[in-house]
Amino acid sequence: MPTPFRFSLEKTDSQSRARAGLFSTPHGDIRTPVFAPVGTQGTVKTLSPDELTDLGAYLILANTYHLYLRPGADVVQRLGGLHRFMAWPGPILTDSGGFQVFSLSGLRKISNDGVTFRSHIDGSEHFFSPEKSVQVQEALGADIIMAFDECPDPMDYDYNVVALRRTHGWAARCQKAQTRSDQALFGIVQGGIFPELREESARFLSALDLSGYAIGGLSVGEPKAKTIEMLDLTVPLLPPDKPRYLMGVGSPEDLFSGVERGIDIFDCALPTRLARNGALFTSHGRINLRNAVFAGAEGPIEEGCTCYTCQRFSMAYLHHLYKAEEILGLRLNTLHNVHFLLELMRNIRSSILQGTFAHLKAEFVSRYIPVQDDAQRRENLSQRRDRKEPAAKPGPQRRERSSSSPLDD
Amino acid sequence: MPTPFRFSLEKTDSQSRARAGLFSTPHGDIRTPVFAPVGTQGTVKTLSPDELTDLGAYLILANTYHLYLRPGADVVQRLGGLHRFMAWPGPILTDSGGFQVFSLSGLRKISNDGVTFRSHIDGSEHFFSPEKSVQVQEALGADIIMAFDECPDPMDYDYNVVALRRTHGWAARCQKAQTRSDQALFGIVQGGIFPELREESARFLSALDLSGYAIGGLSVGEPKAKTIEMLDLTVPLLPPDKPRYLMGVGSPEDLFSGVERGIDIFDCALPTRLARNGALFTSHGRINLRNAVFAGAEGPIEEGCTCYTCQRFSMAYLHHLYKAEEILGLRLNTLHNVHFLLELMRNIRSSILQGTFAHLKAEFVSRYIPVQDDAQRRENLSQRRDRKEPAAKPGPQRRERSSSSPLDD
Repeated sequence: MPTPFRFSLEKTDSQSRARAGLFSTPHGDIRTPVFAPVGTQGTVKTLSPDELTDLGAYLILANTYHLYLRPGADVVQRLGGLHRFMAWPGPILTDSGGFQVFSLSGLRKISNDGVTFRSHIDGSEHFFSPEKSVQVQEALGADIIMAFDECPDPMDYDYNVVALRRTHGWAARCQKAQTRSDQALFGIVQGGIFPELREESARFLSALDLSGYAIGGLSVGEPKAKTIEMLDLTVPLLPPDKPRYLMGVGSPEDLFSGVERGIDIFDCALPTRLARNGALFTSHGRINLRNAVFAGAEGPIEEGCTCYTCQRFSMAYLHHLYKAEEILGLRLNTLHNVHFLLELMRNIRSSILQGTFAHLKAEFVSRYIPVQDDAQRRENLSQRRDRKEPAAKPGPQRRERSSSSPLDD
Repeated sequence: MPTPFRFSLEKTDSQSRARAGLFSTPHGDIRTPVFAPVGTQGTVKTLSPDELTDLGAYLILANTYHLYLRPGADVVQRLGGLHRFMAWPGPILTDSGGFQVFSLSGLRKISNDGVTFRSHIDGSEHFFSPEKSVQVQEALGADIIMAFDECPDPMDYDYNVVALRRTHGWAARCQKAQTRSDQALFGIVQGGIFPELREESARFLSALDLSGYAIGGLSVGEPKAKTIEMLDLTVPLLPPDKPRYLMGVGSPEDLFSGVERGIDIFDCALPTRLARNGALFTSHGRINLRNAVFAGAEGPIEEGCTCYTCQRFSMAYLHHLYKAEEILGLRLNTLHNVHFLLELMRNIRSSILQGTFAHLKAEFVSRYIPVQDDAQRRENLSQRRDRKEPAAKPGPQRRERSSSSPLDD
């Protein structure tokens, strides 16, 4: 039976590693480079599937850990799989649950077999192994599934040595455990900020001949220079004919940085999470609706933006919805931010095809003022803390609407 | 200059007071009887204006008290009025602010001039008079505006005698204060559960020859039999060629009850508020998503329902979104409930035109099990308490997303 997955490169940039490709899946083609909005619990927060289609999303991500706990992979399977459950007809990627499980520190037992952890919802005990992760992901039925990996502190060498060995063994076990041929299994390169470990990981996983390769354990608190060093080192060691996925990365400047280093797939909860906090992307940088200067602003978030929000609503209205804590505000902000990133990726892709990527990047960089490296790092670190928090106090269902904890999104 | 408002009756039912009509406004025709979803703060909670159009909403309501406090009527006016501010092109009705101001008990001073009250947002002191209410409503720019009225406890005779005198004086002052000819001013019949007061009110206000008449102070805790008695008494005393509006009423059974007594316009936050609490309308009565029985339910909320939610999503998915506290769930529930009431009203209107209203009602009643009268009364009373709560603790901005307090919706 021919595999339903084919990754064809349409164009490779002459001045960088940037490339434009097409990844075929059972639920449609993914034009790369692509940004995948995050739909942790089977919904990209605040958006309907039709809105995602209108936004031109090619791929969305859902979280295995969350869906396994609630509503349960068996429920999703009985209801026809995740595509039908959430009424999203396009490609879906599920992570392995590793990242979440390993963020529940203090409440896990790790062995070569797998990991015992407690639910952040009700404190109940669960066990994930590579086989279990694949089994759950097969029940969910995404188009792209991820190998179960261990996610150590990227700066801790000794831990990374041990964890890497385990991650590699687990990747091979995931490959063996797969029973469905209509799901592309991606391996995840780990190794923290240590060149020799990253190299070892890229070589080991490449030898497994998986359907694609992710780079994990980056943008989780390490210095940005290290992120870039690891990318520069790792990507050339991966098979050029397989898609490459940089996990959890999604600020506009990081998309450029990843694309020019040869990354094809990105995912990040940043645009949706920022939106719910009133932070909006513009071509000049982020702005925040909280700012009283917007209370009377007649114009849209950005002149010329073609998103639904900018075409209909003033900043003053969005400011009002934010202050009045209206759900429509969360929706309109999310629509804008997701549109911004998807449109940016469409422009990036066109520029690669037209040979003008370097020009586009220069133009973008000249206008866009990123959040300070330090501030960004503080943000990431505080997200890591949030991520660990639920484990410290497991208990009855947390009731936080539109929370900004990464465990929720 | 010809008034832009014309109310023409298309058909009057032969067996009841039910009637089908057309009320023309500067922003479009309203086919009556009509149910108006409530958009307190300039947004029908969770819905976009396009969704309201798709749902077939003819008229929406916004609250003067809320918009006056935030973002401020001057801001809305500078931005082109409420229609443009919220990007809703159809007819809008604003209440006078009276109902809200009088629910802020303990913190108001009432005189014949007007009412001094404190903001539930920041405790700041404000003054509303009939003239001020009209001025604010003119700045907001709705198609239908309401006279400023006093809303007493419907069971307190002595208070109702005093309040009614004031309400009548205020209605006349509102009429005098009006400077725009493109807004229809409606008077509000008060008088609690006291037939002679209701009669006096209907006669007094009818003599003012206003553009329409509302019946206020009902469904606020009084026994249902009294509500019906007051309706039966009041409606025949109102001019037949003017639209009649029953304020704050919107359960399916109450729509039938109001329509057959000659009511043309209804508004209620019930469908949107219930939706956010997981309570959904079906032709057999309300169901609640909380119920574990829905965790694996493959079907839609109601077979045959043509709303977006029922056409795409299983009850199991909605149950999941509810449990996972996902905003999309609040949206999908709201779409269904608002659709249910608007569709019900479309069917009611058709049945009046076709002379089958009694048949439709009999069919509906035979299937629909309303929430117990007692339970409904408790619900209304508890809403009244909610309404008063913020006044008791004014202070810095309350942070309650998707609150179910009537002050929020």
